[in-house]
Amino acid sequence: MKHFTFFVVAVAAIAGLIVLTVPAPGHADAATAPYVTEIPQGYRDWQWVSSAHEAGNLTSLGSVLGNDIAIKAYREGKWPFPDGAIIAALHYKNVPSDENNKIFGKVQSFVPGPPTNIQFMVKDSTKYAATGGWGFGHFQDGKPADAAFMKPCFPCHEKAKATDLVFTRYAP
Amino acid sequence: MKHFTFFVVAVAAIAGLIVLTVPAPGHADAATAPYVTEIPQGYRDWQWVSSAHEAGNLTSLGSVLGNDIAIKAYREGKWPFPDGAIIAALHYKNVPSDENNKIFGKVQSFVPGPPTNIQFMVKDSTKYAATGGWGFGHFQDGKPADAAFMKPCFPCHEKAKATDLVFTRYAP
Repeated sequence: MKHFTFFVVAVAAIAGLIVLTVPAPGHADAATAPYVTEIPQGYRDWQWVSSAHEAGNLTSLGSVLGNDIAIKAYREGKWPFPDGAIIAALHYKNVPSDENNKIFGKVQSFVPGPPTNIQFMVKDSTKYAATGGWGFGHFQDGKPADAAFMKPCFPCHEKAKATDLVFTRYAP
Repeated sequence: MKHFTFFVVAVAAIAGLIVLTVPAPGHADAATAPYVTEIPQGYRDWQWVSSAHEAGNLTSLGSVLGNDIAIKAYREGKWPFPDGAIIAALHYKNVPSDENNKIFGKVQSFVPGPPTNIQFMVKDSTKYAATGGWGFGHFQDGKPADAAFMKPCFPCHEKAKATDLVFTRYAP
């Protein structure tokens, strides 16, 4: 009887350990949620979605490009984006163009300066279920950010739930 | 003899009229220089060159796209652009994004508002010899501007002679 009790307790303990270490689907810990660690190939050739100018702390001039699946979804105006859609946000410092301003006669022309970062959203509802179906990526000088840096992406993008977590609209 | 003299004078007069009305190549009157009056097909699908934010009177957020020939030339970093290159500048009102600013917590996000105009530069060194090899185009609500409106394009762009009359640089 003693051996059997020990056996039952051991099994229960092991089962408990398994429950503790394997996250239930959709409940992955934010610190371990998968994100995009490789730059999608050929992004610089994708079609243009829109541009954005960020003032404030970001002071950035950016452009958003989309792969074929993303562009098609944008043009059809339907959410959610299908799996396989990838949206790229190319960011640059917002700098005055001395050349152009000399011709304009005043400081009014701002153009992309040095690249700051490239960000991606990759749709895969299974792989990225923990973060709304989107894998977020951030690259500086070609290198991916770490998990801690990536933590705030999803909670903020989740506020754009009505547009499938995507803030950028298609510019006609 | 009188008939012959009259004939010679008549021919000379007609020749003179022809010389006066047919501009010598490269010396077309600015008011009659050809420009782009039809929107190049498929421009919205072209690849992205760069973005620009114009403050001042223009207050515009824009994006520059290029067809395959233009993009190839840009990436090779060689001037002048070859014949067949077309550069499109899509302009929109620069407007704050209420949606984004609600999430940011302050007014810092600017996005393309209503489209204002689309401009083109089409390279054809023969057809557009009078304007530096480039045909300029300006369209609002799909309609081309008139010749008077187009007059200032070339003299201003000529100031960018070092970069083949093109102000926009390629954003990497």
